Amino acid sequence: MQIYGDEQSGNCLKVQYTADHLGLPYTWHPVDIMKNESRTAAFLRVNPHGQVPVIKLDDGRTLAQSNAIIRYLARDTQLLPTDAFEQAKVDEWLFWEQYSHEPCVAVCRFQMRYEHKPKGDREQWRVERGERALDTLEQHLNGNQWLAADAFSVADIALLAYTRLAHEGGFEMVTRPGVQRWIRACETELGLTGVQEK
Amino acid sequence: MQIYGDEQSGNCLKVQYTADHLGLPYTWHPVDIMKNESRTAAFLRVNPHGQVPVIKLDDGRTLAQSNAIIRYLARDTQLLPTDAFEQAKVDEWLFWEQYSHEPCVAVCRFQMRYEHKPKGDREQWRVERGERALDTLEQHLNGNQWLAADAFSVADIALLAYTRLAHEGGFEMVTRPGVQRWIRACETELGLTGVQEK
Repeated sequence: MQIYGDEQSGNCLKVQYTADHLGLPYTWHPVDIMKNESRTAAFLRVNPHGQVPVIKLDDGRTLAQSNAIIRYLARDTQLLPTDAFEQAKVDEWLFWEQYSHEPCVAVCRFQMRYEHKPKGDREQWRVERGERALDTLEQHLNGNQWLAADAFSVADIALLAYTRLAHEGGFEMVTRPGVQRWIRACETELGLTGVQEK
Repeated sequence: MQIYGDEQSGNCLKVQYTADHLGLPYTWHPVDIMKNESRTAAFLRVNPHGQVPVIKLDDGRTLAQSNAIIRYLARDTQLLPTDAFEQAKVDEWLFWEQYSHEPCVAVCRFQMRYEHKPKGDREQWRVERGERALDTLEQHLNGNQWLAADAFSVADIALLAYTRLAHEGGFEMVTRPGVQRWIRACETELGLTGVQEK
């Protein structure tokens, strides 16, 4: 399997985390978004929409959208429950991540870290929605070890990617002990070194 | 099954379309978003996040997120392919819909239709991303009958909901014959009367 991704992008790291955790063999092709490498003719032949991450299977078929990819890689493994309703509860978090978390938490991080915007220049609606998303996580993780299915799953991997980088987008994590506990637990599962706010 | 939804919301209509197409019995509980009925104490007991659509199964378990719901309802039916990779290609469209289509096409429609914003007052970035999303659909549907798996699937239902209402958000469909043909085909599958731009 070929994985095309940018290691600065949480969406791409989700795929790396999942493949590594499952011990899947792959070749990582670095695509630097900031250098517009996702818009080159060569890359557009892999994904005409010019987005990373994307995977290419050995038979040449390609799949885009981070959460579609990790759900596919996780099929028939301990990262995705077998019960249909429990799978749907994982999906509920995956769709929530793309609609209510990523466009706020990840975009604020992008603006501060890569566009060098001061914290005060973030768009107010994104900040408010991002804070709300992190509150939703805190509320759930205060009473639950994992996001879904009482086990570490692709729902945790999808939400971990940008939540552990949220401080780079100006979001404070010190007031969210449930989320911090869960980040450390996910990092232990994935064998990651902590990068979160001190 | 109980479905809580607002018939003005494409996200809720996806669930109605899917349940009706599959002949699933349900009770529809109307929740008027504009009257803040998704924020009442009674509704927050069903979905603490105050979002529609949400379904409640006969055993009391609940599921939110439109695309998670329709994917769950469609399991083991002709609306979701059985092959794992073909399922993943359906998921690719479902996640794309929530990230790249709904926040632009549906939000512009909401602003014009319900907040009575003039077309010229829509946010420029939403208009541009919405046009690009509709172009992506046109490009695909020019050469393909359906979005995924060479068959009518929940990917089509998810994208149909707001695409057939896109003209209410100021998007022109006359220049997109592939999308128009596909909208009519989906409406035929679902037994819907056309509402699209004349």
